[in-house]
Amino acid sequence: MVLYFIGIGLCDEKDITLRGLEVIESADKIYLESYTAILSPNANIEKVLGKKTIIEADRKFIEEGSDIMLDEATNQQVVLLVVGDPLCATTHSDLMLRAYEKNIQVEIIHNASIISAIGATGLQVYKFGETVSIPFFDNNWQPESFYDKVKLNMKQGLHTLCLLDIKVKEQSLDNMMRNLPIFESPRYMNINQAIKQLYIIEKKRNERVALPSTLAFGVARIGSKNQLILAGTLEQLSSVDFGEPLHSLVLCHPELHLIEKKFFEIANKRMIDQLEARSV
Amino acid sequence: MVLYFIGIGLCDEKDITLRGLEVIESADKIYLESYTAILSPNANIEKVLGKKTIIEADRKFIEEGSDIMLDEATNQQVVLLVVGDPLCATTHSDLMLRAYEKNIQVEIIHNASIISAIGATGLQVYKFGETVSIPFFDNNWQPESFYDKVKLNMKQGLHTLCLLDIKVKEQSLDNMMRNLPIFESPRYMNINQAIKQLYIIEKKRNERVALPSTLAFGVARIGSKNQLILAGTLEQLSSVDFGEPLHSLVLCHPELHLIEKKFFEIANKRMIDQLEARSV
Repeated sequence: MVLYFIGIGLCDEKDITLRGLEVIESADKIYLESYTAILSPNANIEKVLGKKTIIEADRKFIEEGSDIMLDEATNQQVVLLVVGDPLCATTHSDLMLRAYEKNIQVEIIHNASIISAIGATGLQVYKFGETVSIPFFDNNWQPESFYDKVKLNMKQGLHTLCLLDIKVKEQSLDNMMRNLPIFESPRYMNINQAIKQLYIIEKKRNERVALPSTLAFGVARIGSKNQLILAGTLEQLSSVDFGEPLHSLVLCHPELHLIEKKFFEIANKRMIDQLEARSV
Repeated sequence: MVLYFIGIGLCDEKDITLRGLEVIESADKIYLESYTAILSPNANIEKVLGKKTIIEADRKFIEEGSDIMLDEATNQQVVLLVVGDPLCATTHSDLMLRAYEKNIQVEIIHNASIISAIGATGLQVYKFGETVSIPFFDNNWQPESFYDKVKLNMKQGLHTLCLLDIKVKEQSLDNMMRNLPIFESPRYMNINQAIKQLYIIEKKRNERVALPSTLAFGVARIGSKNQLILAGTLEQLSSVDFGEPLHSLVLCHPELHLIEKKFFEIANKRMIDQLEARSV
């Protein structure tokens, strides 16, 4: 039979395509990947799926249990719903390779990905280097690898899309030790916090990757009716309240080309208007 | 009012999203951009739009007549349907800037773009440089700028997505001179022809950008039920019949990383099987 990777887009249940919906209607099993990304917290994918049961494929499932799904796909029509476009994350490429190895037929239903949707900033999509993820820092864990990647992108004249961490279905250390299935409330990193973390590393490393003067776009709820795209220096953006999740941050290469510059100026004016409206 | 840029995805009328369909249902005017890209020749977008009239926005319209559309958007709900994701092509960024200048509110409904869908090859989407378009050569016009861009991408360690020319609604020189609205049959460049044109420039320039040994992916009808993704050297791919349009070609940077290499091998084996099946 077939393993379908179906992209469900950026925001909510209305972002699915007619083709995706059609495949789901005839599927035997439906998994929803909730590990690399999620739709907006208010999304309700069940709404468009009718009576079908959705099995959540969390981190543990994808890392340890996905053989079950692959085995099912040898004699059933199995669907894995993935936020965005299915093959932008390495996790899914890897899953696809494993399906090929088991001679399972794979079909992909594409959808919008932040990789191309980020074009809504006016920045050229091919002028982006490797996408990075900024994880929540804690006292014991403050990784710097994303800083190195941003630096490398800038050196090559490229912008960097920073995806900000989400923590859903996390257990406290205590509950994990006691093997209790009790989960903390979900957390979504906002743009302000991402900038703070960039500053923490900048202070340590001092390699001029994330200065208060660095040009950036803050992007909230991209693709939704109430999306917000503002541009400015990191210092300017750090004082803006972008509201509800999900947030992303683009660190720009300083040399914007002509059209990019115009978009930056418009989004910068929008930011200043917003800050002024608030301080009145 | 609002000017909506609605992405309609890669293949046919079933690639539209529920959100896109909802906006279309309440729109006053619907334009379909048919200049930078088209859906597959068999697509029938009218099928999902019901009784709504679609106005074709061809090259002439976008370049000369789009002020009409912008003016309508000041007091009506106007939709521009765009193949793929609306902001991957500079043409639409430019249109969006002009809308901003006229204080028209712009909303974007994202969809799948070849920019992210090309991840279906197994190549990492951020390892692609600037996308190029390969135009049909004729006796008088054989531009080489795409060759230079591929060369630059390769030098930077990046793959190149080559979009192949389509000619729809073209007039013969004779009919154009006489201002007769008679159009030639549509033409779609196939992968074999794209390779031939790359060889023509390679022979002239000799800069080792497109050799028979260059690694590449040939991609036909991406995102459709009968898509075909094969990998090999340009020499191998040049003898494959990829069938119906639309076709694209990816010229790979020679140093593939581990996962990319595995995907290449699978797609190369698929190509060899296909060639053998034919010669039996």
